[in-house]
Amino acid sequence: MPVLLEAAQAPTLIELLGYLQQQGIQARLVDEAAAAIKIQGIGSLQQASAQEISFLSNPQLQDQLLSCQAAAVIMTEAVYQQLPATPDFAVVVFEQPYLMYALVAQWFDQSRLASLPQGIHSSAIIDPSAQLADGVHIGPFCVIEAHVQIGAGTRLGAGTVIGAHSVIGTNALLHPRVSLYHQVQVGDRAIIHSGAVIGADGFGFAPHPHGGWAKIAQLGGVTIGHDVEIGANTTIDRGALNDTVIGNGVKLDNQIMLGHNVHVGDHTAIAACVGVAGSTHIGARCIVGGAAMVSGHLHIVDDVQISGGTAVTSSITKAGRYSGVYPFAEHKQWQYNAAVISQLSQLRKRLRSLEREAELHKKKQE
Amino acid sequence: MPVLLEAAQAPTLIELLGYLQQQGIQARLVDEAAAAIKIQGIGSLQQASAQEISFLSNPQLQDQLLSCQAAAVIMTEAVYQQLPATPDFAVVVFEQPYLMYALVAQWFDQSRLASLPQGIHSSAIIDPSAQLADGVHIGPFCVIEAHVQIGAGTRLGAGTVIGAHSVIGTNALLHPRVSLYHQVQVGDRAIIHSGAVIGADGFGFAPHPHGGWAKIAQLGGVTIGHDVEIGANTTIDRGALNDTVIGNGVKLDNQIMLGHNVHVGDHTAIAACVGVAGSTHIGARCIVGGAAMVSGHLHIVDDVQISGGTAVTSSITKAGRYSGVYPFAEHKQWQYNAAVISQLSQLRKRLRSLEREAELHKKKQE
Amino acid sequence: MPVLLEAAQAPTLIELLGYLQQQGIQARLVDEAAAAIKIQGIGSLQQASAQEISFLSNPQLQDQLLSCQAAAVIMTEAVYQQLPATPDFAVVVFEQPYLMYALVAQWFDQSRLASLPQGIHSSAIIDPSAQLADGVHIGPFCVIEAHVQIGAGTRLGAGTVIGAHSVIGTNALLHPRVSLYHQVQVGDRAIIHSGAVIGADGFGFAPHPHGGWAKIAQLGGVTIGHDVEIGANTTIDRGALNDTVIGNGVKLDNQIMLGHNVHVGDHTAIAACVGVAGSTHIGARCIVGGAAMVSGHLHIVDDVQISGGTAVTSSITKAGRYSGVYPFAEHKQWQYNAAVISQLSQLRKRLRSLEREAELHKKKQE
Repeated sequence: MPVLLEAAQAPTLIELLGYLQQQGIQARLVDEAAAAIKIQGIGSLQQASAQEISFLSNPQLQDQLLSCQAAAVIMTEAVYQQLPATPDFAVVVFEQPYLMYALVAQWFDQSRLASLPQGIHSSAIIDPSAQLADGVHIGPFCVIEAHVQIGAGTRLGAGTVIGAHSVIGTNALLHPRVSLYHQVQVGDRAIIHSGAVIGADGFGFAPHPHGGWAKIAQLGGVTIGHDVEIGANTTIDRGALNDTVIGNGVKLDNQIMLGHNVHVGDHTAIAACVGVAGSTHIGARCIVGGAAMVSGHLHIVDDVQISGGTAVTSSITKAGRYSGVYPFAEHKQWQYNAAVISQLSQLRKRLRSLEREAELHKKKQE
Repeated sequence: MPVLLEAAQAPTLIELLGYLQQQGIQARLVDEAAAAIKIQGIGSLQQASAQEISFLSNPQLQDQLLSCQAAAVIMTEAVYQQLPATPDFAVVVFEQPYLMYALVAQWFDQSRLASLPQGIHSSAIIDPSAQLADGVHIGPFCVIEAHVQIGAGTRLGAGTVIGAHSVIGTNALLHPRVSLYHQVQVGDRAIIHSGAVIGADGFGFAPHPHGGWAKIAQLGGVTIGHDVEIGANTTIDRGALNDTVIGNGVKLDNQIMLGHNVHVGDHTAIAACVGVAGSTHIGARCIVGGAAMVSGHLHIVDDVQISGGTAVTSSITKAGRYSGVYPFAEHKQWQYNAAVISQLSQLRKRLRSLEREAELHKKKQE
Repeated sequence: MPVLLEAAQAPTLIELLGYLQQQGIQARLVDEAAAAIKIQGIGSLQQASAQEISFLSNPQLQDQLLSCQAAAVIMTEAVYQQLPATPDFAVVVFEQPYLMYALVAQWFDQSRLASLPQGIHSSAIIDPSAQLADGVHIGPFCVIEAHVQIGAGTRLGAGTVIGAHSVIGTNALLHPRVSLYHQVQVGDRAIIHSGAVIGADGFGFAPHPHGGWAKIAQLGGVTIGHDVEIGANTTIDRGALNDTVIGNGVKLDNQIMLGHNVHVGDHTAIAACVGVAGSTHIGARCIVGGAAMVSGHLHIVDDVQISGGTAVTSSITKAGRYSGVYPFAEHKQWQYNAAVISQLSQLRKRLRSLEREAELHKKKQE
């Protein structure tokens, strides 16, 4: 990992803390003399160089502080009090080091974002009826269809296509090669990664009396709230009649599939490779682990955590954590156990029959 | 959901029924006086407005008729006969309301499709050897390589790439950002959604004696029948020597992966996130639930239904429904049960040993 | 499968064997008189025509030799010695027929690749700071951002986007519509299929005290070794602070998802639809079956095979094969067994209680 910024562009520690203060983070610099140190990047405790800031979030890594080469380290007051000696690095005290790391990382990324090209590339094809606010960036080979609206400060990467009547809020970031179909609404500050497809047809067919399937045209759209992130190659289908709805602050990882008319509640986070079948409602503040699958037409209440790989085949009416993944084993061991699974109901019968005999035996003896 | 059409563009109820008649749907309008009602869109029973048509397909929703605001409702004769009183909406009687809804939805979608841009966009790069029939639409930034053939009435969305020697039938709809590699054949009336990749190399390698892998170049192609729909970000690999084959009327949802030399029989429908490994044959009229996985080199006969999430690891020789998903539970409950799974073969041994003791005991007593 | 080359362009059998000799493959042509036969393509034993070469790799298919129409067949010495009579086809003897087939297939594919367009398409947008070596091919509508470096002989298909500061080695083949984000390194001879996204943000968020999630900007990159193949619509996320790392000779199938800071060791092959969560290290020469999922922060040693569909939820410290997929069954049968799974820990208790009674009973009798 190279140092991120040249010394000339790098902020001093106190400038960085000032930026964080504007974000509502009130951190304490233990040694005021360290205020002028230049911070050129961020690194983990083990890999940060003497020009970088680091952080201790996981108490189990506390030993790594002893050999840490960083210029400064963010830690809690409790960890600071336990330091055996005055360290070589400057200490920044804040009760949520992981949150503070997130915001410092954002600072460094924003300095990169600020250097990106601006304006509307001459190769983009923009329908005259589209409304683009000031400060919109449109990359090469983008296509903006009729009646599209794009809010101020929003960036579209190269080759992104926005279908007719779609609306994107302000300060959104669409990476290259994103597809929005027609009538898709995306809120402010959205981040949509490359290859994502929003608003493709839901999977709806009626059996045809002459054999085969009659397509049910998907007339609904997709409505996505503010502060949503959508991962690479994730797909969100449009609704059949009403919209598919993604709440505010929802975070979707890569290669997720949300079927038509799915609802995802505010601030729910879904890890990669999850599939949610049509018309299922997932509550607010849920966390869905990677590669889980959720059947269609279910209701999952708020504050549910679903472990990775779990197949959710019925509604969940109570907050809490749910799991269902089959334990793996060495192949031979697994073969023995897997074979028994196919006999489970037989096994239960045999057990019951033994129990009955034992009861009979007891009665006889009484 | 907004009303779809302005009143001026909307059809009357009798005009809509006339269109359906052309499609072979003979529906009965109970009250002839309703013939002139303008139908501006479709809605569900609960959400349709007074300008929209609705339908009752699921008998369990019959109660929703009482508060339905729609201009007209499609229902079966049996439901109509059970109506407690003359409703405020016009009644259209047809024995398959869901099929009729499908075709009405198609009507409204076609009115949208008719308004899309026509012709070959000046930015498209088309090899001089390509043959494009009349009425083909090619969107901005499409690339059509050498010797491609595209049939009449077919539309290519922006940024779609068609590899050399590929052939697309008539009246197909390829959405933006689709990839067809070389030598891929697609039949008439295909619908291919954004991000789909057809004809990428199958995953074939021979272990190399010096370590690592020697690539097996994939020389086959892909042959896709008529009336096939392929979902967003779905991938279908080209064959190793012979073609991968998708039958007529096959419907594939999003993010499906079909390996090299897979065959899918006519009218089979596969839900999202399914993976089918190389050289497996799936029969006709099968239904594969979401997130199922099918191992390679298997044969699955016609008319098989596979439940969502099932891992199909051996051939299926008999029509019927097959399942294999592990039930989920509250995390603690699951932990108890999951722990036992790793001991199943032991458990069976313990049960057998008890059974033997019981038998011995009986013999002694005889 | 059509014959691949016109007779005029086709090599003779002896020319083909000469090419293989250059690749280190010393095969024996049994009948020298066959040296001048023209080889226009490759086919399977059952489908090869009289202008094609075939091979016998799986001894179980030996019977197919009797009706094989091919011009020549590659086989082992042992198979050759067992031929009942002099066959109609020429015999090529080599101890690894599958490897030889791989290289013959490469020969035929290279003849196709050689006919592809060359040079930098006039529509491509290339930042003046990018460094393109000689013989680089850039397809239509590609975008090459600032400070990119591309090595000699590398091909970029149409619509591919390379982010700033990314580096691609020599003789790589990126198919149409690939996304590389900024600061992604790809080695020599890479093959990257359509729709792949390399370097999108890892899924990292810190819980925000005011509710919702603070994004952790992903400042690391992706480093990919030499001779790597990456399948269609596969995604590899960039690291949080350090790079995500893919070793030399790694083969990734379609629709794989590798999270941030994943490491994959040299020559490991991963089949389609696999997800690997963040920070997991997979060793060298591993084979991961399709649709397996691997949790985050695990270590898997070298030479591990994971069966398709297995959920790997803990580290693997010993080479060998591991499995964990739940057996499927006819739906009714499955229902019976699945119901028992939720009672497994109860069942074990009941078994234990019977065992105790039996022990008590024995003691009494002693």
